[in-house]
Amino acid sequence: MDLSEARENAKEKMKGFCGIYKVCDGLPDRLCQGIKYGKAIGMGGIGKGLSFAANVEALDRIKLKTRLITPHIEPDTKASFVGKEVAFPIFCTSMSGVKISMGGGVSELDFARSVIQGAKQAGTLSFIGDGAETFEDRPGVQAIREAGGWGIQIFKPREQKVVLRLIQEAEKAGAVAVGVDVDGAGSVPMAMKGQPVFRKSITELRELVQSTSLPFIIKGITSEEDALAALETGCKVVSISNHGGRTLDSMRGVADILPRLVRILKGKVTITADGGVRTGFDVIKLLALGANFVMVGRDMIRAALGGGAEAVRLELDFLSKDLRKAMIMTSCNSVAEISDRIFA
Amino acid sequence: MDLSEARENAKEKMKGFCGIYKVCDGLPDRLCQGIKYGKAIGMGGIGKGLSFAANVEALDRIKLKTRLITPHIEPDTKASFVGKEVAFPIFCTSMSGVKISMGGGVSELDFARSVIQGAKQAGTLSFIGDGAETFEDRPGVQAIREAGGWGIQIFKPREQKVVLRLIQEAEKAGAVAVGVDVDGAGSVPMAMKGQPVFRKSITELRELVQSTSLPFIIKGITSEEDALAALETGCKVVSISNHGGRTLDSMRGVADILPRLVRILKGKVTITADGGVRTGFDVIKLLALGANFVMVGRDMIRAALGGGAEAVRLELDFLSKDLRKAMIMTSCNSVAEISDRIFA
Amino acid sequence: MDLSEARENAKEKMKGFCGIYKVCDGLPDRLCQGIKYGKAIGMGGIGKGLSFAANVEALDRIKLKTRLITPHIEPDTKASFVGKEVAFPIFCTSMSGVKISMGGGVSELDFARSVIQGAKQAGTLSFIGDGAETFEDRPGVQAIREAGGWGIQIFKPREQKVVLRLIQEAEKAGAVAVGVDVDGAGSVPMAMKGQPVFRKSITELRELVQSTSLPFIIKGITSEEDALAALETGCKVVSISNHGGRTLDSMRGVADILPRLVRILKGKVTITADGGVRTGFDVIKLLALGANFVMVGRDMIRAALGGGAEAVRLELDFLSKDLRKAMIMTSCNSVAEISDRIFA
Amino acid sequence: MDLSEARENAKEKMKGFCGIYKVCDGLPDRLCQGIKYGKAIGMGGIGKGLSFAANVEALDRIKLKTRLITPHIEPDTKASFVGKEVAFPIFCTSMSGVKISMGGGVSELDFARSVIQGAKQAGTLSFIGDGAETFEDRPGVQAIREAGGWGIQIFKPREQKVVLRLIQEAEKAGAVAVGVDVDGAGSVPMAMKGQPVFRKSITELRELVQSTSLPFIIKGITSEEDALAALETGCKVVSISNHGGRTLDSMRGVADILPRLVRILKGKVTITADGGVRTGFDVIKLLALGANFVMVGRDMIRAALGGGAEAVRLELDFLSKDLRKAMIMTSCNSVAEISDRIFA
Repeated sequence: MDLSEARENAKEKMKGFCGIYKVCDGLPDRLCQGIKYGKAIGMGGIGKGLSFAANVEALDRIKLKTRLITPHIEPDTKASFVGKEVAFPIFCTSMSGVKISMGGGVSELDFARSVIQGAKQAGTLSFIGDGAETFEDRPGVQAIREAGGWGIQIFKPREQKVVLRLIQEAEKAGAVAVGVDVDGAGSVPMAMKGQPVFRKSITELRELVQSTSLPFIIKGITSEEDALAALETGCKVVSISNHGGRTLDSMRGVADILPRLVRILKGKVTITADGGVRTGFDVIKLLALGANFVMVGRDMIRAALGGGAEAVRLELDFLSKDLRKAMIMTSCNSVAEISDRIFA
Repeated sequence: MDLSEARENAKEKMKGFCGIYKVCDGLPDRLCQGIKYGKAIGMGGIGKGLSFAANVEALDRIKLKTRLITPHIEPDTKASFVGKEVAFPIFCTSMSGVKISMGGGVSELDFARSVIQGAKQAGTLSFIGDGAETFEDRPGVQAIREAGGWGIQIFKPREQKVVLRLIQEAEKAGAVAVGVDVDGAGSVPMAMKGQPVFRKSITELRELVQSTSLPFIIKGITSEEDALAALETGCKVVSISNHGGRTLDSMRGVADILPRLVRILKGKVTITADGGVRTGFDVIKLLALGANFVMVGRDMIRAALGGGAEAVRLELDFLSKDLRKAMIMTSCNSVAEISDRIFA
Repeated sequence: MDLSEARENAKEKMKGFCGIYKVCDGLPDRLCQGIKYGKAIGMGGIGKGLSFAANVEALDRIKLKTRLITPHIEPDTKASFVGKEVAFPIFCTSMSGVKISMGGGVSELDFARSVIQGAKQAGTLSFIGDGAETFEDRPGVQAIREAGGWGIQIFKPREQKVVLRLIQEAEKAGAVAVGVDVDGAGSVPMAMKGQPVFRKSITELRELVQSTSLPFIIKGITSEEDALAALETGCKVVSISNHGGRTLDSMRGVADILPRLVRILKGKVTITADGGVRTGFDVIKLLALGANFVMVGRDMIRAALGGGAEAVRLELDFLSKDLRKAMIMTSCNSVAEISDRIFA
Repeated sequence: MDLSEARENAKEKMKGFCGIYKVCDGLPDRLCQGIKYGKAIGMGGIGKGLSFAANVEALDRIKLKTRLITPHIEPDTKASFVGKEVAFPIFCTSMSGVKISMGGGVSELDFARSVIQGAKQAGTLSFIGDGAETFEDRPGVQAIREAGGWGIQIFKPREQKVVLRLIQEAEKAGAVAVGVDVDGAGSVPMAMKGQPVFRKSITELRELVQSTSLPFIIKGITSEEDALAALETGCKVVSISNHGGRTLDSMRGVADILPRLVRILKGKVTITADGGVRTGFDVIKLLALGANFVMVGRDMIRAALGGGAEAVRLELDFLSKDLRKAMIMTSCNSVAEISDRIFA
């Protein structure tokens, strides 16, 4: 199997839902934009899908330049996440909701296994999400347990006592880290299924942070106000993300907002960023803007549905190869050397 | 019936006229743009339809940001219009001309009933327009009377004595408010049907305002000069609108001009805004720019033609649900808390 | 016949050449862009057709605003060109080359008659061009003679002695004015047909101006340097034009360059402007930027080929009606009142 | 044969690979963009093809103006490259990899002959590249030898000793000049075929420069840092190029970066520029920005595959004719007179 075949398989499973475009960009004429009036765009996002498209557009707007007359050194892509070494700073982001958001071509558990195992095989890590449909089964927790804990669990901002209990489960599964995506607060499907979600105060988040020995992640931050608030909770990781444009329409692209959030967070917490990443060149851009780790969503879904863990591994290989190539072309010999000096 | 079905019905009734696109945006390749050379674009607007497209584009350009680390409070969408409480600050705008502008799929009276009744069922209000075709029948006035007065009548800027008489009729029907769309002054179909329309001076408008006990609305303001003039007439409501791009080509999008008009009008009159609103996210943007109420046109026509009052109610529900969601994601607990601090 | 029928006829005559789009805008996916590699785009322009597209785009970028709370006065569109009164300040621009540039659906003489007579019937004037194909027949001069002199002849910048002779012919035909389009200097078809064209010095142009009693027009000015030079020749009219994008690729749109040329020329010569005008709203924009007269090319070709003089008249009526409407909406009661205060 | 026929032939040979669009612009809906996921876009470039598209877009953004009221002088397009006179300052750029990058319709040697001979017939010069597939055959060197040395050889940045040996071969073939494209450093196909490529230090490049009596070219510079470094190597020519967008995604268009590199290099080395050039108008833009010579890639491939040397010559004629025309329209009587004063 190669990546291209995996995507052909995915085409079948995501029929009428995702066109498996070479570049998934949210342009107005895409298949996913045609989904039923009044419904979210398939995998695409809320409202008109403008947040989703903005992620891609903001990345495309960033310009790189080559630096080629230098001594040649083979680039080193290794990085360390909350003390764990990974082969490159690229993760699968937290995803869930196979039935609602991905066409239903696999079970939630199989999806979780694909991204967790695929990332493990590639020498890196995957986040995994938490959804309404399969809440009782805890597919993410189970997939992490099966991987000997080599995964990261993100929970929805449910009732405080529920989240506290879930964190304990993830801890028992040996997860590398655990967290909450605070931008799940407006989810209608959650509320409709009797699993209400909420904004969380600093006090509430601090309680969650202090309830576990695992490094705690707050995911879904896009404003300076929230970045400052996150720092007060004692969390170890902040994930800059607009949830792939699925929670609020018309947000800025992540590449646009990242620099001002980096100014607040840099050196105090580990920063991840996701949103619109399609290539290794997108990865180096977000790293150069100050992210410590870059996460990928939609292309991982297409890979997981089309070819399971193997395709997820191939997808991560594809991204890391182009990251490596971009490092050669810009004379960045290690991840630490990637900075805004590569911008043109 | 759901909204998606209603729109499928509308597709039949608006054949060759409106493509019932998921997002009605006035892009150059749309069906409505292909209507006969020398004629107005169907529902779309005058000239090249640039004012229409600008409405959508100006809204899309506005960027929002989330504010999620705060105590959770359920948002309250209620608002009060000239003393009447409504469930949310979203109205149907004044429309008329079913035969000329909407493909003729229903009668003018049925259309008026759909928007007036649909809005009433949703707990909010509808404006209704006045056209040349059915002037003698006064379909708007009749629909408002049938709704026990729960509607707002806007008349064309006809001869002064005619408007004075019409205002009396609306008053007798028990309308919530009454007004004139001054941007009807250039209407060729009106003139051709022996119903000339005119620009109105401050003196003339003041005479209209003083002729009635109802709150008076001046609709169709897009310049600072006209906003200042409107304040001198004694009107209670100013409606910022470019008539959906149907009166002058190449106007700015309403979201672009709104802030400078709000600076003039805020606190002195109630401000409504319409133009290009397709989602609840568009609604929150115009509210954040300073409008007190946001009105919707084209999607209400598609709803009314496809599913009558019920679909109009569903359309308003759809918009208000996304408004509520946007308020959760931006930590706006009431309509009064919606301000430009939600912009990114 | 109406304008829409005329354009349907033109579709036949311009097959494979012009798609008779409702708005002729030079976008990359247009039929005319697909014409043979290495050849000029049909009617469209040289190179990639960027000058042509820029004309349209520059006009579209200009924004207008309404001014509606004023006393109503019916607008007066009359204007005076070199002492001759016309019903409105809209002309057909100078065109020629039916065989090369318009698909060859009519004879050069019939084309000249259509625009000259159509403009006359509409109460206004037409320029007419001069081409290589039918140089010996002088179709423009003949059409002007047949119209009792009610037309304006523009010649290519041929050898000085040839132009001098041609000017005498136009004078004998009783033309309203005569001139040279200096931007014909790079024409390859002319040179290939043994009719070389040249840039003209101030001295040479002054000789042409002084050789005739007719008002002299220099057409094809787009730079401040050339505008200043034109003033030194003693000409009466300067025509700001990029020849519809047919002479040099990547020029600015005429609406973009017009203001800085108006600063040089205003009050010293009569200024005409053409390039990308499709509607009466485009006309009012160029007038507001400082042109005294606005000229139209491509839509006149489509009209002339599809319906002769009658369709040209209808096209001019269409444009003047929308100009009138735009004047009502912006409270411009006469052409003299049209100024940049209508810009939003 | 004319150019249009040659391109029709090329269509067959480049099926599924290149759509032979009239203007090759890298827009997202182009055939070449649809090539297998995870693979480079055919001829198009790496990643999303953004560097490629940026080349075209940056050129399109530059605006020219006419200068027509001047004495007429026939323009002289001649230029001198490292002491050799050419009819016009337009070259074929270095290309190679017929099998991988051009659909494989001809042999590498025939391709090299087409561009070298076609340029010679047109009175100008061609660069020729070096690829992994046919490394042993040295097709470029052979084609140059056959042309009596009338060609320029560019090698990949291979191991130092290999490049030193290759330079000697080119010198023996009598090449006009020789060089290295330093932006080949990240090539994965090269590495996979046991022909590793490297960034080169100033010291290494200086060694190459000093190893030969031929003028030495460093190709692939896009940053000020590299331009300054190139000056320290003693090379005679610097080629500003982003390799047609094939080496790093999201680079700026060459027309965007050229001016700041010209500031560093002007008068010290000969400057060539390539990237997105499709017409003679593109050529004059890059010359006006400070390049001494302009090179063309993709359209030369289409010509060479469709019609061999003859079509390459026709392509160069087409470009030089429009350059000449542009010089007439802007009053540039020689190449030396082309400067930024032609910008609007």
